[in-house]
Amino acid sequence: MDARFSLGTYLDDRKARVDKALRDVLPGPDAPPALLHQAIHYSVFAGGKRIRPILALAACDAVGGDADRVLPLIVALELIHTYSLIHDDLPAMDDDDVRRGQPTNHRVFGEDLAILAGDALQALAFGLLSDPNRGRGLPAEARLAAVSELVAAAGGDGLVGGQVMDLREAPPPAAAADGPARDAALATLDGIHARKTGALIRAAVRIGARLGGASPEQLAALSRYGEGVGLAFQIADDLLDVEATPEEMGKATHKDRDRRKWAYPDVVGCDASRAIARRWIDGALAAIDTFDARAEPLRGLARFILDRRS
Amino acid sequence: MDARFSLGTYLDDRKARVDKALRDVLPGPDAPPALLHQAIHYSVFAGGKRIRPILALAACDAVGGDADRVLPLIVALELIHTYSLIHDDLPAMDDDDVRRGQPTNHRVFGEDLAILAGDALQALAFGLLSDPNRGRGLPAEARLAAVSELVAAAGGDGLVGGQVMDLREAPPPAAAADGPARDAALATLDGIHARKTGALIRAAVRIGARLGGASPEQLAALSRYGEGVGLAFQIADDLLDVEATPEEMGKATHKDRDRRKWAYPDVVGCDASRAIARRWIDGALAAIDTFDARAEPLRGLARFILDRRS
Repeated sequence: MDARFSLGTYLDDRKARVDKALRDVLPGPDAPPALLHQAIHYSVFAGGKRIRPILALAACDAVGGDADRVLPLIVALELIHTYSLIHDDLPAMDDDDVRRGQPTNHRVFGEDLAILAGDALQALAFGLLSDPNRGRGLPAEARLAAVSELVAAAGGDGLVGGQVMDLREAPPPAAAADGPARDAALATLDGIHARKTGALIRAAVRIGARLGGASPEQLAALSRYGEGVGLAFQIADDLLDVEATPEEMGKATHKDRDRRKWAYPDVVGCDASRAIARRWIDGALAAIDTFDARAEPLRGLARFILDRRS
Repeated sequence: MDARFSLGTYLDDRKARVDKALRDVLPGPDAPPALLHQAIHYSVFAGGKRIRPILALAACDAVGGDADRVLPLIVALELIHTYSLIHDDLPAMDDDDVRRGQPTNHRVFGEDLAILAGDALQALAFGLLSDPNRGRGLPAEARLAAVSELVAAAGGDGLVGGQVMDLREAPPPAAAADGPARDAALATLDGIHARKTGALIRAAVRIGARLGGASPEQLAALSRYGEGVGLAFQIADDLLDVEATPEEMGKATHKDRDRRKWAYPDVVGCDASRAIARRWIDGALAAIDTFDARAEPLRGLARFILDRRS
């Protein structure tokens, strides 16, 4: 890693490698039953930024691990992310018609296939981590730890739990009129964010670190990094929902407000939201300040997450 | 295992142990978010026969493994089974209102919670297999192999793939009018059965065997056993759908016929269906005929699966 590290080049290179690995690990779109695999390919290759697998690779690099060897395993993070988007978009949940500028999975393939494509993606993700023919030489204990990390980020304490809270427990924004109610609202919002977004981002960093052979001290520092980045990521998302145009985002914006759902800017305003996100990022950077230049991509990613425009 | 082996007593005992283990491993119904865990408990404790975990325990016993140690892992099979029932019952899929004599999950908790409860159950299942605090002392390699087996049974080559074929690829019964069409129909039906039912039953036997420390020869024999039992199980289910009353089954019967879906009796008649199932069971029993008395539960289970009335 030389002094002229360019985050743009790094992101392009890593995204290309993640995309290639995803094509390698997924059954082809003609594999039977073909409809299922077409539905899976449709959403996996709909143009995601691959932030989660890239964070895992950067964490692996930061502890001196072999990123090439862990690549076919850590794309599992993108499969879990994609499955959660497909299910969140369903009519019974957020009922979204557009995602990344294209019709959502169930609009193209039907609700049944969208549910089943998500179900299959979750199974495929755990299949990658447990497959002895991928990432040869990685210790079985590290693979099992990666399964456990991914389960925690995907289940009731992670994505699923966050979605349940978001759909069924979030109070209306009007409840945030006064001081104590506002504090309670922020606490609820933090709980939802930690599960819906924070858990998988933290898991990405931890899985990359564990498969890369991190020491317990490195793992603890990287967990704090992942936690900060994860919470900042969701606040940045909320800000984009308020400030960006649908064209920039490739999906409907202002949706949270239209649906009377909570978002950070509704509760504390845009400026305070940005300040809170920046504090999380500063904390994330501080957590890894003893790491050497191999952590430069992690540092760049943390800043990118706050400043991105889509 | 003495000569007076009683399958009834064995099934009651094992079912009680599986039920207790399920209560031990699942988050309580009040764990946050409570609605999610209530939905999970509702379906997991709706009175299933626990055939899959019991088969796993019997396979573990047959190879001289420690059934107590593997118990908290192999209940993962019941979680996967329950998740697949919840999702199959959804309005976008089979649209069933009653399951095991009670309203289906989405009728009680709503479609969103039903989808999410299924999603969380799948994650929980893999979490059990990878948790180092359960089944202490089991080798990491055997756990990873169990994860791989369960993934194969749950994903596109298993439950999910079978459901896609059942919903989207099964031709109407009228197509079975003549000889060649009937053969093609049976081949399609076998493909659906192998995925929807056979894969998880075969995986149950293989996972129990692997965690019990089976030799490669034992594992190969038990795989043939599991395959035969799995295919017979689905044919027996089809026969029950035609012959049993809704009261016996705790769910609507004749549904396959009403929906114009394929079932074995439609294609070859009830007598031939029963004969085919019996051949599969005979093959399953032959596969394990060199096993000693510790395989007696497996033998009893194979016969039970053919003769059960619900």
